Parts: sequence; structure tokens; C-alpha cells
Amino acid sequence: MSIVYDRVALIGLGLIASSMYWAIKRWGVANEVVGFAQTENTRQEAREIGLCDRVYDSIAKTVEGADLVVLCTPVGAMEEVAREIAPALKAGATVSDVGSVKRHVINCVSPHIPPSVHFVPAHPLAGTEQSGPRSGFAELFEDRWCLLVPLEDTDVTALENVERFWQALGSRTAILDAEHHDLVLAVTSHTPHLIAYTMVGVAEDMRRITDREVIDYSAAGFRDFTRIAASDPTMWRDVFLNNKDATLEILGRFTEELFALQRAIRTGDGDFLFDYFSRTREIRRGIIEARQDIDAVNFGRNTAAKLPHDE
Amino acid sequence: MSIVYDRVALIGLGLIASSMYWAIKRWGVANEVVGFAQTENTRQEAREIGLCDRVYDSIAKTVEGADLVVLCTPVGAMEEVAREIAPALKAGATVSDVGSVKRHVINCVSPHIPPSVHFVPAHPLAGTEQSGPRSGFAELFEDRWCLLVPLEDTDVTALENVERFWQALGSRTAILDAEHHDLVLAVTSHTPHLIAYTMVGVAEDMRRITDREVIDYSAAGFRDFTRIAASDPTMWRDVFLNNKDATLEILGRFTEELFALQRAIRTGDGDFLFDYFSRTREIRRGIIEARQDIDAVNFGRNTAAKLPHDE
Repeated sequence: MSIVYDRVALIGLGLIASSMYWAIKRWGVANEVVGFAQTENTRQEAREIGLCDRVYDSIAKTVEGADLVVLCTPVGAMEEVAREIAPALKAGATVSDVGSVKRHVINCVSPHIPPSVHFVPAHPLAGTEQSGPRSGFAELFEDRWCLLVPLEDTDVTALENVERFWQALGSRTAILDAEHHDLVLAVTSHTPHLIAYTMVGVAEDMRRITDREVIDYSAAGFRDFTRIAASDPTMWRDVFLNNKDATLEILGRFTEELFALQRAIRTGDGDFLFDYFSRTREIRRGIIEARQDIDAVNFGRNTAAKLPHDE
Repeated sequence: MSIVYDRVALIGLGLIASSMYWAIKRWGVANEVVGFAQTENTRQEAREIGLCDRVYDSIAKTVEGADLVVLCTPVGAMEEVAREIAPALKAGATVSDVGSVKRHVINCVSPHIPPSVHFVPAHPLAGTEQSGPRSGFAELFEDRWCLLVPLEDTDVTALENVERFWQALGSRTAILDAEHHDLVLAVTSHTPHLIAYTMVGVAEDMRRITDREVIDYSAAGFRDFTRIAASDPTMWRDVFLNNKDATLEILGRFTEELFALQRAIRTGDGDFLFDYFSRTREIRRGIIEARQDIDAVNFGRNTAAKLPHDE
């Protein structure tokens, strides 16, 4: 138990917010957690499953008196949310967010934050391919990074509290500047997602030619892409629209590399392919050493999905 | 227990062959399994861990008297293997293989098969990112497809026996023609692997700019790519060199789609992105329904890797 805030308000009740709620409760990080969602449907669902101590129908009511307000909507909705909550924010409160892009969020949210309120942009690197209020679970942030992207004039104590808050939820924290964050994430998350969506789109087209075969015979590789490409469409649309420059830069590099490999296939340059494929093995080892993935073979599929033998 | 062959010979002792050995033993599918590997090192390792009833130093000796000989080497080595074993094959024996491309294997192996020997090309759709004699396990083929790609003149009984053999190892079996197999696999496996390798290569380059950050902050998406790109370089070099046409065709379609998405990002066409990302969700559902993947959220990472909380 280590109370960091008396009252926390979560705006938007999807995977991240619902996981935050369960983790806050498990670790006793706040005395009270209130929530708001855009649609009546989601608010109703949240109430049914006991998500948040109270779910309000009014966004202003939700943030009133809150010590920490976390924007958990798709990034494309954050400016409007900031505009709506601004008049109701308590003096001395902190506003944070969980958006996957930071320069855009800073540019569109900070103009609406009153002078008496702190703004500490953040980004927990955690998620699954699921979404919605029922998808959250308390362990989501365990040992995951939460990147904090303070502004030049961000209050040090407010920043430290947000850091303690995420650490209390199980995360490791680090501080990055917005541009650097957006570039690193374009490499590690945004471009891979776009590529996975693209490959699954190609298979969708091919399905018409090959009937069910691309599904039935979906082997390792493609299966993994389909999981990535099952992520929330609204969230990802907003990411790409709002991290345009970094994504386009990394896409440019990606295409360049892909053409080099394609050329090696066309010309039969086995040495080039072998060297390339050997080099990429290294980075996987680094990721496991950095505890960014488990090293369970094949994602533990073979042990997770023991099926009765046909015999 | 359902003995399908008296003696099985495995040529090449990597992930697939070692998994076959453990599965054959567990389910009693053959009376005796003998093996051969190219390097003394691998043969020694196999002997140490009890892989195969006997490991021979001579490839000819290994296939002598075998009822089923399975080529488990990278596809680029199969022609040479076929040439070497041909004189030692028993009349009435069956030669099969586990290569990920079929047209090339058929073209380069079948000319060496003596008239008294049957050739039944096959491809078990199973694997992990690991390789080598220690990587195998008996459950690898459970509920996975094994695709059989018979020639026009393949003996029906020989084909049925290979089918029974794979079913006894836990697989589902289906029959495809070689060209169709190579195209479907280019979509579901080969191109996804090439793309994953490419993206990890881009990140490798970026690592120089961003220091350790692309590793430390490797989020979902990229992590999955690194697992795929940790697969055996020799195997994959041979796949791309020997399924050139289908891979280049699918790569062409992929690039076309990618450019359409890139253009939508550049022009800010959110509707195009949203529609695209919604469409791809469907195919994931199909794959889970077809039992080609488990539906454990985030590959079961969160439940597989419970870590002690920092508190």
C-alpha cells in the first residue's frame, strides 16, 4: 500500500484505463478512482463489471476534485477532452495521458491546461491486441516501461508523483523528450504495426484466390502478424495520423531495406541474405536480456495449448 | 502404438528431425529410428542427448534398409543429399522431406530417386524460432497441418503411409499441388518472415542513433518481429532462393498495399486507415476458429511470465 494520489480520474475506459483501475486497487495506489467514457454503452459496461469506484455521465463531474486526471482515449480525441475538462480541473491537480505519440499530444493538450494545473505526458509501453473496458487486468504494467515526457516547465514534484504512481503499478520509468520518444516508438511499435496490417491485408486479398487456405495454413510468422493486426483500429488510425513524420521516415528506411533484400532474392545473392538474417538474431537476444520479452519458445504456444492427441 | 514403418532414417538433425524423433518414440510410430547429420559436432550432440536409436557417420549407411527416409536438411542441401543416398536406398522404400518449398525440392530431388523407390514430398507446418538437435520436442506437430505434395505418378499406398505417419505424430494432413503450396506459403510464411527480418534490420541500424532504446523500449509489434527474425538463417536463405517467384509476387503486392497506406498517412486519410485496420481484424478471428493459433491474449505473455512485483 502506497497511496500516491487521493483521487484519480480516468477518461476513456479501454484496455489501459481498465488495467490501471485494477492495478491501482490491487496495489492501493489511490483512495478513489472515478471514470468517464464517451458512450453510454461503455459506461454501462464499466458499471456492470465494477470498473471504477464511480462512473459519471459527465466528463466535468468526473475530473472535479481529482488529484490526477489521466487521458486514456485515442490520441485523436485528446484535444477535445482537454478543452472539455479544463474549466473543471482542481487547482494543483495533475493531468497526464497514456498516448502512444507525444509531440502531437503536447501540442494539442497543453494550450488547454490552466496555469494552476500540472501537465505530465506519459506513455506506458504495455498493451495486448484486445480493447474495451473488459480487456484490462492488473498485471498489464508489471515490469513494462512507462516513458515520461515532461515539458520544459513541468513541475518537478508533479513529475515525481507521476513517476511514483507508475512505479507503484509495477512499471519501470524513464524520461525522454517528445521527438525522441516519437522516433523510437515509430521504430519499435508504429511501423511494425503498419507492416503487420499491410501483410494481413495482402493475405485478405489472396484469400479470394486461395479460398480458406491462407487461414488454414497460416504458419508461424503470419499468425503473429494477425495478432498484431487485430489491435484497435481507432487507436492506430490516430497514431499514424499524429506521428506522421517519424512513421514516414522509418517507412522510407524500411522500404529501402526491403528492396535490397528483394534484389538479393531476385539475383540469387545467398550470402547477402544469410548475413542479413544472422545479424538480426542478435537484437532478439538483447531484447530478452533487457526483459522486454519472455524467451518461451514459440511464445509458449506449445506448452500453453496442449491438445488431446488424435490417437 | 501404431507402427507405420519398421525403420525410419532422418537426414539432418535439427528442430524438425529431433521433434520427429521424440514424437515417433512417444507414439510408437516406428520400431527403429536412425539419423545422420552433416557435421561431426551435430552427430556428437545427438548421441549425447540420445537423439535417434543410432546416429551414423555415413549417410549411405543411415538409409540402408530404411523403410522411410526423411530429408530434414535446409532445402538448398537436398539435391546433394538425394544424390548421395540414391545408391543405398532399399527397393520399395519411401523418400520424403520436410522442406518449406516444394516445386524446387521436387525438381532437384526426384531425378535422383531410383525407379524402385517412392517419393512423397511433404511439409509439416510447424516450427519455433529455435534450431539444432536440442530444440526438438514431441508435441511440435500436435494439431498442426502437414501438407503432402505428391507427384502425378506417386504410388497411392506410399502416399497413404506417409499420411498415416504424420497423423500418428499428431498432425492433420492435406494434399496440395506444388505451385499452389509454394504460393500459399509465400503469403502465410515466407513473405512475413522476410518483412520481419527487414524491420529488425532497420531497427539494428537505428540502434546506432538511439543507443539501447530500440531494445529497451521494444514494444508489442517489434518484439514479435524479433522472435520471427531469430529463425535459422540457412533455412531461410534457402527458402527465399528456392521460392523466388512466389515470394517476389507477394512482395510486389505487399509493397503496393504498403504504398497505399503510406499515402493515406501522408495525406491524412483517416477513413482509409480505419477501414483497412478494421478489415484485418476479421482474418484473425478466422485463424483462431481454424485452430491455427491459441487465443491467449498477448500470446499468454502476461500469464506465462508472472514477475515479482517491485513493491
